[in-house]
Amino acid sequence: MSGEAGAKPNLHISKHRLEALVDGVFAIAMTILILEVKVPVLESPRSAAELAARLAHDGPTIAAYFFSFGLLGVFWAWHHRLARLIGSLDVPLLALSLLFLSLVSFFPFAAALLGRYLLNPVSLAVYFPVVGLILATQLATLELARSRGRLDPEVPAADVLAARKRNGRGLMIFGLANIPNALRFGLLPAAACLAVSALLFLWIRRMK
Amino acid sequence: MSGEAGAKPNLHISKHRLEALVDGVFAIAMTILILEVKVPVLESPRSAAELAARLAHDGPTIAAYFFSFGLLGVFWAWHHRLARLIGSLDVPLLALSLLFLSLVSFFPFAAALLGRYLLNPVSLAVYFPVVGLILATQLATLELARSRGRLDPEVPAADVLAARKRNGRGLMIFGLANIPNALRFGLLPAAACLAVSALLFLWIRRMK
Amino acid sequence: MSGEAGAKPNLHISKHRLEALVDGVFAIAMTILILEVKVPVLESPRSAAELAARLAHDGPTIAAYFFSFGLLGVFWAWHHRLARLIGSLDVPLLALSLLFLSLVSFFPFAAALLGRYLLNPVSLAVYFPVVGLILATQLATLELARSRGRLDPEVPAADVLAARKRNGRGLMIFGLANIPNALRFGLLPAAACLAVSALLFLWIRRMK
Amino acid sequence: MSGEAGAKPNLHISKHRLEALVDGVFAIAMTILILEVKVPVLESPRSAAELAARLAHDGPTIAAYFFSFGLLGVFWAWHHRLARLIGSLDVPLLALSLLFLSLVSFFPFAAALLGRYLLNPVSLAVYFPVVGLILATQLATLELARSRGRLDPEVPAADVLAARKRNGRGLMIFGLANIPNALRFGLLPAAACLAVSALLFLWIRRMK
Repeated sequence: MSGEAGAKPNLHISKHRLEALVDGVFAIAMTILILEVKVPVLESPRSAAELAARLAHDGPTIAAYFFSFGLLGVFWAWHHRLARLIGSLDVPLLALSLLFLSLVSFFPFAAALLGRYLLNPVSLAVYFPVVGLILATQLATLELARSRGRLDPEVPAADVLAARKRNGRGLMIFGLANIPNALRFGLLPAAACLAVSALLFLWIRRMK
Repeated sequence: MSGEAGAKPNLHISKHRLEALVDGVFAIAMTILILEVKVPVLESPRSAAELAARLAHDGPTIAAYFFSFGLLGVFWAWHHRLARLIGSLDVPLLALSLLFLSLVSFFPFAAALLGRYLLNPVSLAVYFPVVGLILATQLATLELARSRGRLDPEVPAADVLAARKRNGRGLMIFGLANIPNALRFGLLPAAACLAVSALLFLWIRRMK
Repeated sequence: MSGEAGAKPNLHISKHRLEALVDGVFAIAMTILILEVKVPVLESPRSAAELAARLAHDGPTIAAYFFSFGLLGVFWAWHHRLARLIGSLDVPLLALSLLFLSLVSFFPFAAALLGRYLLNPVSLAVYFPVVGLILATQLATLELARSRGRLDPEVPAADVLAARKRNGRGLMIFGLANIPNALRFGLLPAAACLAVSALLFLWIRRMK
Repeated sequence: MSGEAGAKPNLHISKHRLEALVDGVFAIAMTILILEVKVPVLESPRSAAELAARLAHDGPTIAAYFFSFGLLGVFWAWHHRLARLIGSLDVPLLALSLLFLSLVSFFPFAAALLGRYLLNPVSLAVYFPVVGLILATQLATLELARSRGRLDPEVPAADVLAARKRNGRGLMIFGLANIPNALRFGLLPAAACLAVSALLFLWIRRMK
């Protein structure tokens, strides 16, 4: 596979540079989550009771901040575990990485929507598909790198297989966990979640 | 050329440092694009219909976000392919790089203007020249580095020629693609686009 | 200890990558502090007296900006002194680091609250616990790394001991300094501060 | 001097880490300058005349953006030329670097004030002192590093002398250039600018 990769035209964009962009986008997406938590405007600036009441009212927004920060942290860690397996980039891999980053950078909007309208089903219908797409682009990146011979030849095949199974299981569990949520929008979305999860299950079983 | 570069006064700012600034500015410019997509203020916070209608209304803004993110991603990738060819920096190259970065950082404003006023010709008259100037500063950076003997002496001449032709063709195609758009502002802007494209065509043909 | 670490499952996320994320989050948290200092809206744009009066009115906000920037700077320096002692990451250490970062990124909100409502006790009751939690996650990170055998085996034991004592003393002094402040909320919070400080004092004495 | 530095207690914060923070703060400060250029709210969204008029009205703000971006670029380049001369950090040098960064991060506020109230003398009385303090902390950093034996022993003494003279001259010229501006606030500020410039002139002459 190393020989094949050597013969392919090289994009001349090192992994290292892309990782710097990835770290930057994650750092900013994580940090601007807090911009959604607004300093309340008080009628009596010195009233402890009013400020406490306003902050208690913003409690779900603050909880959503820590939850979304943690989720972005998990995506970031997952991404770096995958990036280690990839040896070099080509145009389709770079395009998929940019799609991944655009979803990561879109995430603060989805999180703000959910924090503001926690009980509105449409905000869930934005938030969960964004999370699902982030997981799916991660999975697709590794599969694409593999099919195009761009994996790092020094990484043992067992590590690649374990990473592929982990990706598949992650997305499968996410699909199953979304069924109750999808049921609020009708039987069809729930059936779609189930079908995707079932396909992933069969796909993981056939991996070797 | 390597000997010439060695004799020139050195700016003592390594390429590596400039690249860190470039990656930072791109990461932030990409991420703050999402700040233009505002969380809507609903009259009935739990109304799925109202939130869905408001998000549908913001559809073009959201589409513009992904389009602009992708465009910045292309500029970023293009920049790094060029940066690989340059061996060291001097004051004019640094000044041109800062102009390039100031345009990249200006881009989110142009993108916000276009997303908000998609049907207003003036927003196009800001967006497309900014894109054109970003492409033109990329082209100028490589030409300047070449004329000042700042290319990396280890890069094959064929790679430099290919990069110069790619820069020229990119800007030429952008100029031609803008003619229908320029026609909305009169014959003169359209003729200017055509003339620039024709000059680029002649310039590319004479390259060797 | 080095042999033990080698036998443990490896997270494959290098310290270097986490440090890049840490530097990014700190740089952004520091820089967005300034967004809280708003350009005043003047009735007479050319009136020097009005602008001077408005800026004087915003004096505490501006002073709070420099104070909070300095505090983040101290946290950043402290973090890097600790990070030097840690050799490799595992999942609990990564989770603690993300909690630390989420508090750092929450800090600009706490600082904005304090700058806006300096005389409101509730804003102090947000600001100081956030600072305390940042110090406590730092302390916990080093203790966790030590108990899990993730310290860098090349760092002398005396350096680790000195860092642990410094962490403990920092949090103890912070606890004592907060007693007058805690008294405003009743005897119980003040007693809690005192108890935590006393426990830290005993813990530091028993260290070896 | 190298031996002296070796004997001093080491802060264990590498120059490399501080430079990453510096690059991050500069990248963000440069990029958030654009947040001051607001997308206008139009009465007739499709009116080209209205949008053109509004953008023309925002012309000074846009020009101020490019000017301030360029100025931050110059500070960044200047900083990196100085950072090359310094071998290691101690607490006073780190504190001075954080003060420098807090001023860089404050600069977008000063720039926004100047862009909004170009004709108000108070906005000049904020902008120019901030620029002056940024230049002065640069000068102080090199002098402090020199007096504390923290210069890189491999840098030739002639380079250090040239950098010190450049720093002194830069601040001196800035002081002289500010005299007309300072005269608007009375004779005393103008005399202070003159006195500082004269002292810098004498100091540069005595350097060896």
